[in-house]
Amino acid sequence: MNEPQITHTPGPLLTQIDFPHILRALPVEKLPQVAEELREYIIDIISVHGGHFAASLGVVELTVALHYVYRTPKDQIVWDVGHQAYGHKILTGRRDVFHTNRKYQGISGFPKRSESEYDTFGVGHASTSISAALGMAKARDITETDQKVVAIIGDGSMTGGLAFEGLNNAGTAKSDLLVILNDNRMSIDPNVGALNEYLAEITAGKGWNTLRDEVWDFLERMKGKGGGTMQRFIGRIENGMKAALTPGGLFEALGFRYFGPVDGHDVVQLAKILDDLKDLKGPILLHCMTVKGKGFAPAEQDQLKWHAQSSPFDKLTGESLVKPDPGKRKIPNWQDVFGDAILELAKQDPKIVGITAAMPSGTGLSKMMKQMPHRAFDVGIAEMHAVVEAAGMATQGLKPFVAIYSSFLQRAYDGIIHDVALQDLPVVFCMDRSGLVGADGATHHGALDIPYLRCVQNMVVAAPMEAQDLRNLMFSASLHAKGPYAIRYPRGGTSDEGIGPFVEIPIGTGRKVTGGADVAILSYGAIGQSVSIARKHLQEAGIDAAHYDLRFVKPLDQALLEEVFTMFDVVVTIEDGVIQGGAGSAVLEWMSDHGYKADVLRLGLPDTFVEHGTQNELYAEAGLDPQGIARQTLAFIRQHQSMNA
Amino acid sequence: MNEPQITHTPGPLLTQIDFPHILRALPVEKLPQVAEELREYIIDIISVHGGHFAASLGVVELTVALHYVYRTPKDQIVWDVGHQAYGHKILTGRRDVFHTNRKYQGISGFPKRSESEYDTFGVGHASTSISAALGMAKARDITETDQKVVAIIGDGSMTGGLAFEGLNNAGTAKSDLLVILNDNRMSIDPNVGALNEYLAEITAGKGWNTLRDEVWDFLERMKGKGGGTMQRFIGRIENGMKAALTPGGLFEALGFRYFGPVDGHDVVQLAKILDDLKDLKGPILLHCMTVKGKGFAPAEQDQLKWHAQSSPFDKLTGESLVKPDPGKRKIPNWQDVFGDAILELAKQDPKIVGITAAMPSGTGLSKMMKQMPHRAFDVGIAEMHAVVEAAGMATQGLKPFVAIYSSFLQRAYDGIIHDVALQDLPVVFCMDRSGLVGADGATHHGALDIPYLRCVQNMVVAAPMEAQDLRNLMFSASLHAKGPYAIRYPRGGTSDEGIGPFVEIPIGTGRKVTGGADVAILSYGAIGQSVSIARKHLQEAGIDAAHYDLRFVKPLDQALLEEVFTMFDVVVTIEDGVIQGGAGSAVLEWMSDHGYKADVLRLGLPDTFVEHGTQNELYAEAGLDPQGIARQTLAFIRQHQSMNA
Repeated sequence: MNEPQITHTPGPLLTQIDFPHILRALPVEKLPQVAEELREYIIDIISVHGGHFAASLGVVELTVALHYVYRTPKDQIVWDVGHQAYGHKILTGRRDVFHTNRKYQGISGFPKRSESEYDTFGVGHASTSISAALGMAKARDITETDQKVVAIIGDGSMTGGLAFEGLNNAGTAKSDLLVILNDNRMSIDPNVGALNEYLAEITAGKGWNTLRDEVWDFLERMKGKGGGTMQRFIGRIENGMKAALTPGGLFEALGFRYFGPVDGHDVVQLAKILDDLKDLKGPILLHCMTVKGKGFAPAEQDQLKWHAQSSPFDKLTGESLVKPDPGKRKIPNWQDVFGDAILELAKQDPKIVGITAAMPSGTGLSKMMKQMPHRAFDVGIAEMHAVVEAAGMATQGLKPFVAIYSSFLQRAYDGIIHDVALQDLPVVFCMDRSGLVGADGATHHGALDIPYLRCVQNMVVAAPMEAQDLRNLMFSASLHAKGPYAIRYPRGGTSDEGIGPFVEIPIGTGRKVTGGADVAILSYGAIGQSVSIARKHLQEAGIDAAHYDLRFVKPLDQALLEEVFTMFDVVVTIEDGVIQGGAGSAVLEWMSDHGYKADVLRLGLPDTFVEHGTQNELYAEAGLDPQGIARQTLAFIRQHQSMNA
Repeated sequence: MNEPQITHTPGPLLTQIDFPHILRALPVEKLPQVAEELREYIIDIISVHGGHFAASLGVVELTVALHYVYRTPKDQIVWDVGHQAYGHKILTGRRDVFHTNRKYQGISGFPKRSESEYDTFGVGHASTSISAALGMAKARDITETDQKVVAIIGDGSMTGGLAFEGLNNAGTAKSDLLVILNDNRMSIDPNVGALNEYLAEITAGKGWNTLRDEVWDFLERMKGKGGGTMQRFIGRIENGMKAALTPGGLFEALGFRYFGPVDGHDVVQLAKILDDLKDLKGPILLHCMTVKGKGFAPAEQDQLKWHAQSSPFDKLTGESLVKPDPGKRKIPNWQDVFGDAILELAKQDPKIVGITAAMPSGTGLSKMMKQMPHRAFDVGIAEMHAVVEAAGMATQGLKPFVAIYSSFLQRAYDGIIHDVALQDLPVVFCMDRSGLVGADGATHHGALDIPYLRCVQNMVVAAPMEAQDLRNLMFSASLHAKGPYAIRYPRGGTSDEGIGPFVEIPIGTGRKVTGGADVAILSYGAIGQSVSIARKHLQEAGIDAAHYDLRFVKPLDQALLEEVFTMFDVVVTIEDGVIQGGAGSAVLEWMSDHGYKADVLRLGLPDTFVEHGTQNELYAEAGLDPQGIARQTLAFIRQHQSMNA
């Protein structure tokens, strides 16, 4: 399919707004039209180029109102997570490059400081905005400048403990700070937890506001009656009722002045409210109700499906413009292999439970959650809780599988160490999105989990090269009686269907994929698939490469390494993670400990943050595509030959 | 000084209570005496042997009541942090070994699953108890067993986001769970944050309860009067007031039924309340007021000083029994060197701010907090918030120094990566308590920070060998214009006074400490001091060892390593952290990348969790005392010689 052309240009107002100061010159009554044009433009571009979708549509009015009222870029607007910031990007100098969003060398899908002075704080992971904004506000007070600071955080992000830590600290700080709670009842999957129910209650309708009005009237009337005791009562009741009848008492308890809920799609009213709140002192919370996907009917109706879109669709009906290819062999994604396998395993073993942190669909756990709701849980954006809760479950004899993306598991690092590994509890970590994830970019790449898990005592650290290996490793992990067992695998499609029967893989056993004479390539995980292709390129260059799949970096396969280093004096290791302390480093340690002196080339991700693009583009950039692997291996062999000539 | 003898035996009741079932056989009116004897016993033992002190005295009655009411060990009692669990240990089979508390090969200062079936969940770090208990409760429901689950969490631990994540999830779970909020207004240092103020308001005195009683009376009287509209009003006001006049509305908002506040020192009443709450359904929070140090006057008066005691004291007056030695040269602790240096630096550079997470005294930041309260902050037990707030400050041009213990920084790992390193923001991490910390044991050792930081892109990772190096590294870090800069140093005394003027150390430069001919020893950090002594032992064995101080593991000192590997074919690396992916591993990577083939012995912490004891005992056990270093180096040289003979 050819890439479709952009059919739409920005509307007449939007086309003039190169930067927010132009927006601010408009009369307030023009804002609805700006919002309308902005929404249209987002739909137009995403329908062709893909991207996160529904979140940005939900905050179009809020975005316009914020840049209208605040003196950006001097005032600091901090977006939580940031996939809702498309409107912000379009209004702040990136309208005409917005079609490069999330593409290789294009603009990032998230706010990014290096991209624009309007992007005050880089995001991607959730729940950071209040803490970052509080830091900015305190810095302003210390340096005696006068920029305003606003954090915009979704109700989903509020389930993260970091958001609470931010609120708890902001509530007693003397700093002026506005937190806007963008309440749309959804993160990617529907939100969970008590706070979510609390917010639903506040916004359920007339209850709170009507009651408040009635009671004030009643108390006013009572004031005219009765004696001094009665008057004292009334005063006390009034104070009590203020707390009772203000929705948002929870936020008031944490030291915030609460305003709302307000309609997040009335841009004129929003501008007025923001203007009113702008100069208030201390920590303020504005509760803003929005609809995810607002203005695009298919997205309003199916918010989960429309969280993000990667392929073109009809901008009126939402129908996909990609024709299904019936001849194409259907290869599952890694998450589907995980989702099917955990369900199968759980049916066989009543001790298995599944836990995810706000990613039921992304990890594939949703299938088990539907079929076994009492044994599969979504805990919200609360990775650390997920891990410690799993540890608690394991103490009672259960076998929890915790499904969290590699980069998000960084949030739960202390739980892995202090709660699981130290207690040697049998918790299985299934880490999707390891390696380079593609368009989500630097915040989402799972580049560090090999070194950060390999150093942890009692850990088993494994990675499947193929889908069936993932099934087998999960099965093997379910048999592992004590201690943590981590399995990492990448985003995207597998190379095989992964539907075979479970076979146990003993811990610390790799395998020889193919023999060879000139060089040994030791791969770890799914990147081994690229080695299989690289091997053919090498063959064409006259090099006969042996290929070994390490499968475990902790513990290492002793016998396999003995064989490799006895037979080869040129060895290449390859992993889709940073090489500092990674799988190749583990091999070097083993070599050193066992007195081997081979020449070793370690291939992996660079010691810099990799940006966004397709996975193929990024792996090629890192030299980890089959061509890159072959090229570097060949150069290393030549170098070795010349040194030893 | 000779070790003083234990002068006290347990009281007549306590002496019989080998296990809780014996306690449960007593009539309830005996509980005050049990509590009294338990308190006396704790004071007696700690006054001689040292340990955490005030926290356990505060929960003596609660501990007795819990084991009286619940069927331990079947019912699961989860202590948060765990340094308050001394009474629990004494009542659960460890009375007669309690004097070995925190000593080498003695019992642990924290609950520990491998030590007793009554220790349901190992702790040490804060805020885990609700999540762990919820996991246990869910597991009970899945496995259809009937154990009760109780979490006891301090108000200090409630400042951690994980505790909020636990509440937020428990509030909507269908599981029965009791959370006891042990509210004493202190963690180690005084608590901070809005939640703390909220709790203070609840418990400020008669306010809430009196108002509640008065209003109910008033409403009852009103019910007899007025027509239908008035009656409807009354009903609505009643509902509203229920929320307003229940202290603990914040917890109710999170789905908990709130009870309290109750007196945590009335053991008979506590037993009755616990018995009443035991069979209630769903999540329950009992708010219990206690006094840290209760029953020991000096501790009640100075809770900070009496959080823990390491040396003997008079059990009546609290006076230290250790005679000061006026002839002894006064060597500062690392934290004092940090505390003085940050204050000096902050006076010179208005951009420097200090942040700690509930450890002002432990990190040494307290001095700056006193002298520059607007530029030094304690954020409570909220490490992740500390790091993200620092990132926010750095975006506004400040230079934040974040002082967090090595093992607690694990809580902020994603903040280091996603918020600081990825944005290349100039945040300095000062990590006290790296390496083996001694009596606090496995949960507190800073064993992993070298590998977990070395893999992170953009990081500078440094460690001083001596106090003056710490000053110089801090000064150098303050000049580092962008990107994170981590400095690790151990618990305890330095080898020098560290009062010299600041000298800049260029990034990635180590130093040759002493030359030598037979072997090069490359040390990283303060463990280099032991190498200096080991070198003398080696000299006695006829080995002339060169000693290099790496000072940076990222970036490495290229010139230094060139020199080492050009001159030596036997090299020993040494670090006080695990060696998987550590400093020695970094050296192997460099060797491999540069084609060197020396024999390298990597010394460091083992790939297992090290238990508690004195630092000297533990380093000796790990072979990292001077004798151990010399012994292993010598053996390695002999092995090298025989291989090459």
